[in-house]
Amino acid sequence: AATVLAVPLSTPAIAQQNPKINWRLTSSFPKSLDTIYGGADDIAKHVAAATDGNFTIQPFAGGEIVPGLQAADAVSAGTVEMCHTCSYYFVGKDPTFAIGTAIPFGMNARLTNSWFYQGNGNTLMNEFYAKHQIYGMPAGNTGAQMGGWFRKEINTVDDFKGVKMRIAGIAGKVLEKLGAVPQQIAGGDIYPALEKGTIDAAEWVGPYDDHKLGFYKVAKYYYYPAFWEGGPTIHAFINLDKWNSLPKHYQSALTDACAFANTNMMAKYDLKNPMAIKQIVSQGTTLRPFSQDILEACYTAAMDVYKGISATNADFKKVYDDQVAFKKEGYLWMQLSEYTFDTFMMIQQRNGKI
Amino acid sequence: AATVLAVPLSTPAIAQQNPKINWRLTSSFPKSLDTIYGGADDIAKHVAAATDGNFTIQPFAGGEIVPGLQAADAVSAGTVEMCHTCSYYFVGKDPTFAIGTAIPFGMNARLTNSWFYQGNGNTLMNEFYAKHQIYGMPAGNTGAQMGGWFRKEINTVDDFKGVKMRIAGIAGKVLEKLGAVPQQIAGGDIYPALEKGTIDAAEWVGPYDDHKLGFYKVAKYYYYPAFWEGGPTIHAFINLDKWNSLPKHYQSALTDACAFANTNMMAKYDLKNPMAIKQIVSQGTTLRPFSQDILEACYTAAMDVYKGISATNADFKKVYDDQVAFKKEGYLWMQLSEYTFDTFMMIQQRNGKI
Repeated sequence: AATVLAVPLSTPAIAQQNPKINWRLTSSFPKSLDTIYGGADDIAKHVAAATDGNFTIQPFAGGEIVPGLQAADAVSAGTVEMCHTCSYYFVGKDPTFAIGTAIPFGMNARLTNSWFYQGNGNTLMNEFYAKHQIYGMPAGNTGAQMGGWFRKEINTVDDFKGVKMRIAGIAGKVLEKLGAVPQQIAGGDIYPALEKGTIDAAEWVGPYDDHKLGFYKVAKYYYYPAFWEGGPTIHAFINLDKWNSLPKHYQSALTDACAFANTNMMAKYDLKNPMAIKQIVSQGTTLRPFSQDILEACYTAAMDVYKGISATNADFKKVYDDQVAFKKEGYLWMQLSEYTFDTFMMIQQRNGKI
Repeated sequence: AATVLAVPLSTPAIAQQNPKINWRLTSSFPKSLDTIYGGADDIAKHVAAATDGNFTIQPFAGGEIVPGLQAADAVSAGTVEMCHTCSYYFVGKDPTFAIGTAIPFGMNARLTNSWFYQGNGNTLMNEFYAKHQIYGMPAGNTGAQMGGWFRKEINTVDDFKGVKMRIAGIAGKVLEKLGAVPQQIAGGDIYPALEKGTIDAAEWVGPYDDHKLGFYKVAKYYYYPAFWEGGPTIHAFINLDKWNSLPKHYQSALTDACAFANTNMMAKYDLKNPMAIKQIVSQGTTLRPFSQDILEACYTAAMDVYKGISATNADFKKVYDDQVAFKKEGYLWMQLSEYTFDTFMMIQQRNGKI
């Protein structure tokens, strides 16, 4: 009898356990880039699966709801509940956004994750994001990107003088100090600009994505590394009120789905980039490392830029100083076992012994 | 009226949405190692949080239910639903288990993840694990480990002759080819064995865990890298029938919790190892890299071992060959942007410029 009586009483509570919630996510990326756009799909699928289909997130490609570079604005305003984007696209509002993705001479993907998950990264960035009505979580990483496509060789620091290069944000400011002319151009417009010679150089991501966009057809030299993107994070940005109003277990499901997307995107790049770099080279591209002199000149220029921003922006200074302290320790540690192991394995690879 | 009628009909379905399920997890590690044991806590907390407390997993330290090195047996037999362990602890049953964690001259943590999540790693290993009634998922990584503690210097290949070293599995077989005498000793027994001189050397994990166990007090030289553990995975092993009987959304919640644990453990090591290595060095330990000659001799010995096992074990050969093909591509790609960026940052770190 007690069991029978309990049914009508417990029904509302049980029914609310997994309430139906439908969100929209605007991505900053086109669907054709399955790697970086794929992160949004991962989030949506994993959240739906973990909540038995009750919490659904519908991803839209960049431009379908709002343009890719306005994704964070749409989240702040509550036009959409969330987006999948690069925090550094929004440096125009505040340079502190840049640290959420990557800054020149920042950290590799692994240290970036460590800073976010176990260091102060997520806490500090979310203190800052909250001022923009945003809650952010890492939800993808590309690994160290390539330095980009150049129509002429860049052998010395002076060779950067007058080079019109598609490169955004803080990295643009660094190259500007060397005499380059940074240009902000949306992904889809880079190829024609490079083809026509409106620009002399462009950076995008890495072999797999770059090959899709066909840059190897219009620029001969492919430089590495992108010292401005050692391990850039792709973020899930969620409207802060929407985040706070989610049931706790949906917050958890979304948190874990983002952790999965974060690891899975890096895994996908590491599977796909090797094949792509071989294709690119077989199609006639010349691979070149930036010289040590160039990297050092850019390092000095970057330190100047950080000093300048830190002098006038307390939020930036707070997060930047924390990340620098973390990075110093991280790169001490990684040069022991990690670096020695990788170096040895790379030598075996080069010698055809794997 | 339709709505009212629907209530009693739908009640059983809704009540089953989040059924109460309680599992036990046996860890292979002691609670004192918060890094590696912590992965089990992460899994349990995240699964409970994502299922609103309805799917609970209670973790037990190694030895509480079964000894740490019998964790997989307890899962196969269904004594516990799952465990958190190293697949390579079970090489005695079949050397194929070793590939699930790490094998000498395998891959770093990032390529390991890529092989599992996007390559054929999870598929191939689970084909194999199924023969032992196990479903496995990566749920932690330590990064490249240290090569271990030696009471005397190891300058040449010959110096390994007669060295009694605590080192298990396939790595032991490799060092045996150089004349070392591998010993299998449980974690808690290493310190007294090294102190008494019953053994001359021992490998464990890395600075943070090794410092806790106090090895720096009884061996002067700390070598790197552990070429046998470039990025070892810690696994969640689940009894296959128990896995198959889980509601799909609980399978998803558990999958994502393991992905979180995987990234979070690596993040924790990268936060804690730098502080620990500085403490260890300040207490008088001498850090030494294994020489290139030693690494090359071990590499040759390892290839011999793999050839031998592959000749008689089809499961091993299938998984090993797949991983080698993946590794060859991965280390081609990683030596471009990734390696150049890290090298430059490490130089800055060494020069005190970070």
